Amino acid sequence: MAQYDLPLEQLRQYLPERKEEPDFDDFWRETISESLGRFEPPVFEEVDSGLKLLKTYDVTFSGYMGQKIKAWFIVPKDLKDELPCVVEFVGYGGGRGFPHDWLLYVCANFVHLVMDTRSQGSSWLKGDTPDYEPSHGPQYPGFMTRGILDPRTYYYRRVFTDAVMAVQSVAFLPGVDAKRIAVAGTSQGGGIALATAALAQGVKGLICDVPFLCHFERAVKLVDSMPYAEISSYCKVHPEQTETVFKTLSYFDGVNFAVRAKCPALFSVALMDDICPPSTIFAAYNYYAGPKRIEVYPFAGHEGGGSYHTRLKIQFLQEIFSLREV
Amino acid sequence: MAQYDLPLEQLRQYLPERKEEPDFDDFWRETISESLGRFEPPVFEEVDSGLKLLKTYDVTFSGYMGQKIKAWFIVPKDLKDELPCVVEFVGYGGGRGFPHDWLLYVCANFVHLVMDTRSQGSSWLKGDTPDYEPSHGPQYPGFMTRGILDPRTYYYRRVFTDAVMAVQSVAFLPGVDAKRIAVAGTSQGGGIALATAALAQGVKGLICDVPFLCHFERAVKLVDSMPYAEISSYCKVHPEQTETVFKTLSYFDGVNFAVRAKCPALFSVALMDDICPPSTIFAAYNYYAGPKRIEVYPFAGHEGGGSYHTRLKIQFLQEIFSLREV
Amino acid sequence: MAQYDLPLEQLRQYLPERKEEPDFDDFWRETISESLGRFEPPVFEEVDSGLKLLKTYDVTFSGYMGQKIKAWFIVPKDLKDELPCVVEFVGYGGGRGFPHDWLLYVCANFVHLVMDTRSQGSSWLKGDTPDYEPSHGPQYPGFMTRGILDPRTYYYRRVFTDAVMAVQSVAFLPGVDAKRIAVAGTSQGGGIALATAALAQGVKGLICDVPFLCHFERAVKLVDSMPYAEISSYCKVHPEQTETVFKTLSYFDGVNFAVRAKCPALFSVALMDDICPPSTIFAAYNYYAGPKRIEVYPFAGHEGGGSYHTRLKIQFLQEIFSLREV
Amino acid sequence: MAQYDLPLEQLRQYLPERKEEPDFDDFWRETISESLGRFEPPVFEEVDSGLKLLKTYDVTFSGYMGQKIKAWFIVPKDLKDELPCVVEFVGYGGGRGFPHDWLLYVCANFVHLVMDTRSQGSSWLKGDTPDYEPSHGPQYPGFMTRGILDPRTYYYRRVFTDAVMAVQSVAFLPGVDAKRIAVAGTSQGGGIALATAALAQGVKGLICDVPFLCHFERAVKLVDSMPYAEISSYCKVHPEQTETVFKTLSYFDGVNFAVRAKCPALFSVALMDDICPPSTIFAAYNYYAGPKRIEVYPFAGHEGGGSYHTRLKIQFLQEIFSLREV
Amino acid sequence: MAQYDLPLEQLRQYLPERKEEPDFDDFWRETISESLGRFEPPVFEEVDSGLKLLKTYDVTFSGYMGQKIKAWFIVPKDLKDELPCVVEFVGYGGGRGFPHDWLLYVCANFVHLVMDTRSQGSSWLKGDTPDYEPSHGPQYPGFMTRGILDPRTYYYRRVFTDAVMAVQSVAFLPGVDAKRIAVAGTSQGGGIALATAALAQGVKGLICDVPFLCHFERAVKLVDSMPYAEISSYCKVHPEQTETVFKTLSYFDGVNFAVRAKCPALFSVALMDDICPPSTIFAAYNYYAGPKRIEVYPFAGHEGGGSYHTRLKIQFLQEIFSLREV
Amino acid sequence: MAQYDLPLEQLRQYLPERKEEPDFDDFWRETISESLGRFEPPVFEEVDSGLKLLKTYDVTFSGYMGQKIKAWFIVPKDLKDELPCVVEFVGYGGGRGFPHDWLLYVCANFVHLVMDTRSQGSSWLKGDTPDYEPSHGPQYPGFMTRGILDPRTYYYRRVFTDAVMAVQSVAFLPGVDAKRIAVAGTSQGGGIALATAALAQGVKGLICDVPFLCHFERAVKLVDSMPYAEISSYCKVHPEQTETVFKTLSYFDGVNFAVRAKCPALFSVALMDDICPPSTIFAAYNYYAGPKRIEVYPFAGHEGGGSYHTRLKIQFLQEIFSLREV
Repeated sequence: MAQYDLPLEQLRQYLPERKEEPDFDDFWRETISESLGRFEPPVFEEVDSGLKLLKTYDVTFSGYMGQKIKAWFIVPKDLKDELPCVVEFVGYGGGRGFPHDWLLYVCANFVHLVMDTRSQGSSWLKGDTPDYEPSHGPQYPGFMTRGILDPRTYYYRRVFTDAVMAVQSVAFLPGVDAKRIAVAGTSQGGGIALATAALAQGVKGLICDVPFLCHFERAVKLVDSMPYAEISSYCKVHPEQTETVFKTLSYFDGVNFAVRAKCPALFSVALMDDICPPSTIFAAYNYYAGPKRIEVYPFAGHEGGGSYHTRLKIQFLQEIFSLREV
Repeated sequence: MAQYDLPLEQLRQYLPERKEEPDFDDFWRETISESLGRFEPPVFEEVDSGLKLLKTYDVTFSGYMGQKIKAWFIVPKDLKDELPCVVEFVGYGGGRGFPHDWLLYVCANFVHLVMDTRSQGSSWLKGDTPDYEPSHGPQYPGFMTRGILDPRTYYYRRVFTDAVMAVQSVAFLPGVDAKRIAVAGTSQGGGIALATAALAQGVKGLICDVPFLCHFERAVKLVDSMPYAEISSYCKVHPEQTETVFKTLSYFDGVNFAVRAKCPALFSVALMDDICPPSTIFAAYNYYAGPKRIEVYPFAGHEGGGSYHTRLKIQFLQEIFSLREV
Repeated sequence: MAQYDLPLEQLRQYLPERKEEPDFDDFWRETISESLGRFEPPVFEEVDSGLKLLKTYDVTFSGYMGQKIKAWFIVPKDLKDELPCVVEFVGYGGGRGFPHDWLLYVCANFVHLVMDTRSQGSSWLKGDTPDYEPSHGPQYPGFMTRGILDPRTYYYRRVFTDAVMAVQSVAFLPGVDAKRIAVAGTSQGGGIALATAALAQGVKGLICDVPFLCHFERAVKLVDSMPYAEISSYCKVHPEQTETVFKTLSYFDGVNFAVRAKCPALFSVALMDDICPPSTIFAAYNYYAGPKRIEVYPFAGHEGGGSYHTRLKIQFLQEIFSLREV
Repeated sequence: MAQYDLPLEQLRQYLPERKEEPDFDDFWRETISESLGRFEPPVFEEVDSGLKLLKTYDVTFSGYMGQKIKAWFIVPKDLKDELPCVVEFVGYGGGRGFPHDWLLYVCANFVHLVMDTRSQGSSWLKGDTPDYEPSHGPQYPGFMTRGILDPRTYYYRRVFTDAVMAVQSVAFLPGVDAKRIAVAGTSQGGGIALATAALAQGVKGLICDVPFLCHFERAVKLVDSMPYAEISSYCKVHPEQTETVFKTLSYFDGVNFAVRAKCPALFSVALMDDICPPSTIFAAYNYYAGPKRIEVYPFAGHEGGGSYHTRLKIQFLQEIFSLREV
Repeated sequence: MAQYDLPLEQLRQYLPERKEEPDFDDFWRETISESLGRFEPPVFEEVDSGLKLLKTYDVTFSGYMGQKIKAWFIVPKDLKDELPCVVEFVGYGGGRGFPHDWLLYVCANFVHLVMDTRSQGSSWLKGDTPDYEPSHGPQYPGFMTRGILDPRTYYYRRVFTDAVMAVQSVAFLPGVDAKRIAVAGTSQGGGIALATAALAQGVKGLICDVPFLCHFERAVKLVDSMPYAEISSYCKVHPEQTETVFKTLSYFDGVNFAVRAKCPALFSVALMDDICPPSTIFAAYNYYAGPKRIEVYPFAGHEGGGSYHTRLKIQFLQEIFSLREV
Repeated sequence: MAQYDLPLEQLRQYLPERKEEPDFDDFWRETISESLGRFEPPVFEEVDSGLKLLKTYDVTFSGYMGQKIKAWFIVPKDLKDELPCVVEFVGYGGGRGFPHDWLLYVCANFVHLVMDTRSQGSSWLKGDTPDYEPSHGPQYPGFMTRGILDPRTYYYRRVFTDAVMAVQSVAFLPGVDAKRIAVAGTSQGGGIALATAALAQGVKGLICDVPFLCHFERAVKLVDSMPYAEISSYCKVHPEQTETVFKTLSYFDGVNFAVRAKCPALFSVALMDDICPPSTIFAAYNYYAGPKRIEVYPFAGHEGGGSYHTRLKIQFLQEIFSLREV
């Protein structure tokens, strides 16, 4: 079935029961503060990308527990004033790639940091950052079940903390107006951005395209596509761990970050998306606590609104940073 | 089989018999001169794309028989001197999309024209240009067999002429150094660029990624993927037209343009490409008459070298336009 | 899911809201009358098909705007009296093929006209008729989105008018009892037949097997199979045109023809049909304004009742033309 | 790979080693004579098919060991003289269907017998004849391995004998010119026809479209599609029986019948056929001992030449029965 | 959709209308008593399987109408006392395989009989038993529609009777405690075991994993996977037989055996099983008349709980045979 | 193509060029000796598996660098004498599962150790052992590219060392005749067993079924199935690392272990195996330096000879341990 999930009118009302452990906030407060305690300012070095209109920097910042995470930082060549900054996170399996993979926001006159996702970056865009932690138990191939039996060992604890630290780090980079920072991402990147909007201080805008990592319990029942199916495959082989798995995931569920985020947000959802089901995205969107807007693409799959939606993202950033009259 | 075509060492030597009608050059000379006779300078209008580092123009130029073809023209905002120009053609099913879909070359300080492909632009990037001609007979869904029973009515006669006229038109656009024009494209875009390099005056460089439209006779025997399979499907239903079909195609075969092109060229090929088989690309490359280089991606499919290869394209342009020491 | 659409009991009641523009009837009245104004009697020529029990004629009739459309006309060899006539339309991608592709109705002692579908006839049965109009804008490969931004330029405006003119033309062919004309078709052919039953004068019966082109809005949400997915693919790339697209389609929707047709009709539907979803067919059937019957095949896909259903079609024709006691 | 088998020039020369047991001829002589010993003239009864130009008869003839096999017999309504007769066999999984499924040859003024294939007739065209024998051991789902451990119990021993008996029986049907009998079939039907041309007395022509049941040893190595894969699946589970299996199959291999048949033959082959590989068909064709012709469809799959090829079959019959000047 | 059937809470309540012919019990009473009338004690012979901890016997017992059915009988080498016995049936397409395929129950100190399924045993585990009956009409490839037009000729009448006779036979084998016999099976084996629990005297336990052959009418509407789709394919080709087919199947439907079985039962079901839909299994389970338990695997397909579930089966047997404290 | 690799006669001769770094032996000598330096005797504990004929032990032994690796150790309940021991390794994605997953060898009167594969055990059989090392760089989902840029960090360095240490450990377990140890495995397990036969002291037999991890360079060109395609996917994204990747893999290639192993070996290969191509297996087999035998399954895929082959493995063990007359 092409539009296989709930009808749009039901999606717009969809507010499933949220499951959240009592120590959710404590868990994240301790996690973040522990890594902040190891914070060091980012190191950066200009690289020659051949993109003569821009300056591109290879950045190394301190992520989870001070571990070294790579990023690209890209600014207009003739940077004079401080500019609003977009901190971007990458989709599942990809890494930071090359500077020329990230030209949109800088051409729109923002400065732009693209965070490498640890251990990924080998399925499409290349990455340069290892995961510094061991696997903490058996896992299904991929990243979704690495360390999944405990929120403290779960892979995304490190990734989300890296993302918060990335926001923390940009203030130290040249040309960044630290009062105007937005986070952005598509699919996994959207899930990371949503978590970051809730966890990091001072995020002023959220761009969240067809986000992954939302409402896991429904997602795994609804689709058998990767990467959500990494979780169901794991549970199939370890049925006795099912409850533990979903308890861990509740600490990383976009639905639980949505109720905590406050900045203006632009979401997108595609009604034929069989990777990130529409209802899981609406679950997060409907719970989202800040000013919000969602663009619905009725005939798209996980590619979402594509370059049509790109225009709306630029306009959104211009609006929230008062660069444009609405 | 992952690498299903000939082994690389044989690919590098592969020079299949070329089939070319005696009036090949006459056909194209008359085709081009007829359209040149209807040439009018392009009309262009600046559009607000939100990309503040750039200026973007909506261009309408006179293509085949003077028909109006759309394009984007993109230049650095603070354009002072004339810059080398890249004229780019789009892959099958796509159109010119939006200006923000084309940021690479301008960020590398080239000016850039992206030609819309008539009647396409509805499978991925959107297009804005109709095909002004009727279908001239039954056809398989798509563009490969539109008017295929006569080279004069064949769809690509119009497209290739549009492309030659695009090169002719850029000299009239602001900031173009008409002595430094390169053509570029991927897949169908690569096939169009190759033909244009042979047919248009004054092309100084060719970027030809995983080109389509080369060595049709082998392609249709080797793969059953679209769009080459549009041709075999047509021949299945019209077996009595097979000879006519391939005679028409010989006027549009990249192998026959390759022996006529003289400018420096950078090709790419992927050994697991089941859309554009490696041997059909090497057939064109091995016959190519100008200075040339080919980058081989042994483990890629039709996506080719991706953003890894992007760097080589920027370097190639810098070299041929003496913007870089080799 | 094998029977993926609504349960049969709900299908039998299914009457979705119809969307119809106020000028629907004007649009078609003007369209038909304009082409009738250019009507010329059909030209026909006997051909040697080797089928010695029959006479077969290659027919050229004047279709939309007088454009020349091909057809086969087939009659028993020893034709004495005027016989009832079946005018048949072909499924998507097919053309009129060869005379020997159409032996059923003549063996049952009807005369039979098979209309070529302009520009199709290259996916399965061969065709011989071009589309004489240009593409009027970009399109997805196929015929579903050719000229779709305006009902006046839409491809099926021409096809449906061709079909009405075919009915108009048969009266001029030898042996046709012009008072006993039925229209028939399967899939796209069923959709054309349904429209023709509503638009043409004097149609006395309708055979409508697993019809395509009905209730587009539901179809594109329910299935992602071709050819309905040509429409959703187009809307994915041109989301800003979605409303325009469905407004155009409303002029061509079998549901809107169903309420206008009055002749006896035999429909068929297959409950596992994932090309033409059962609910879209029942939508047309339930709205159908004339005497009607529908045969339900619970276990078939788009192949429908196959040769089992053939018997019912012959019986239906015998009944409506009083050739058989019921 | 689209044309995945040998290149056409090699196919035309392809003469693999034939494997044949010394008692091949004895086996078949005894098989046929035993069933002939139980021969009884066919019983037939006119049925009302609604096809008023024809007479259609429900036939029951005595097949293997006198077992009752169903068939349709179809003749022109105003049959005066004796006419040449086409005895046709059906493709895998199909049965005799309905009389209206078989209109071609009678419209071309031949009389036509269509034999039901025992126990099949439930995958596409319906059948009406059981297999009267038990399974003689375990089998893979389908008919290819029923009784395969001994040529005497093998399913096709019964089917081929039925076919020979069908030819024997037609002489008893009204209007048959017993001196002008041809056998015909597509896929499995082609394999049965080829065997029958070799085994039955007095067959004067053979139409053999994309025949199945030829050169089993190569077929099972080359394709993993059904129904050849029934054999390889069986051998996978019973590896110790592999030699026995192929010994049995050698008694039923079209290659071994080809060297024994003498009548004029028209073959067809499709170079993209992944059900019946081209080389297995050329193996039979190249060994064929009578006057012969083969039509090659380079771009077709197992559907072969479709209705384009139909014309050639009518012409072939007219030629061999001197109904047409060549 | 991953969990495509009803939600678990609805599955637990699912009690569809049962359809049962009035002579259901008579049919089975006569069937069983007729075969019991031909009962002879099993013949068995020790075979050297290389499994030195065990003794393995090749058994031939009298099944349906006294026909000879093969089985393996496996016991601990140093068998002293009589042990409880597990009689096991095999999944669709498989046969009894080799003794080393059946080590679980004997290692857990049960004696174990594995029944060969007549005519199967060529898709995965090898079999050694023919079906002694002819096909009784045309059939779809496989076993589901063999003789399906009459319950007396239906294939599973023979298989279920074989199974009842297997239980009858084990009392004659060495070391069997005839008062402690359980039946077990997975998929088809589960369906056979369920029928046997209802039909055979003295069965004391039932292990029924992801059973096939339950609630046919829903199954064929819900899934198009084999082997249920053999039935829908048959009905597609023989639509006039649909009612007859489902009437026959009602005599073999697990739902109708469930209401008749009385022994303790352990079921399993997998919520992503697209071979045996969860609702068809719950239909049988919810109707089951004896003490019962069902283990639900939310993330598994037809493989069910795999070796995780194996532990529960051993525990269940220990409980019902009082070998373990609960 | 069903048998898509080289013909069998060529496979039997296939000896591709081996690529081996000069420090291959040093690398492994140091690797093993470093871990041996941290060796501690295994810890084991009896567990109640319900398998009353056996005793089953949960074993923890010291693997790579002394890291704790889990295993099952299974012996006959009434173990009197020391028995030959089979050390088994598991296929890709699986772990040690449950004791009841491993009943074959113990029923044949061997003692049996099954090693858990670190970090795997979540795709089919469950595992219980983490990988104690971090990822050392980005990786494709799975285990094939974890740490692949350096043989010292590569995942399989740890796994192969674990396997050698498992052999070292069994001597400390009850009932093991340390002079009669064989290693065994299927697919990945076969690759590990082959490496272990070469690297561990005192291995007396090798059972190597359809081994994975052999002749990587050909495998990745020939098949695009997982898990070999993890490597090609990685190289697609990191083309500049291709040489480094294959240099690393040369230290882990079964071909290079084959020339170093000396014990008797039983291989199996399936000619339709598209996971582990036949030529890669024959490459290892043909280079194998000890007494050897290979069983060829012409019609099987990666499932190989299944339970048919099981008999040959028992016989092989009986022969090499002189338990059977040959």
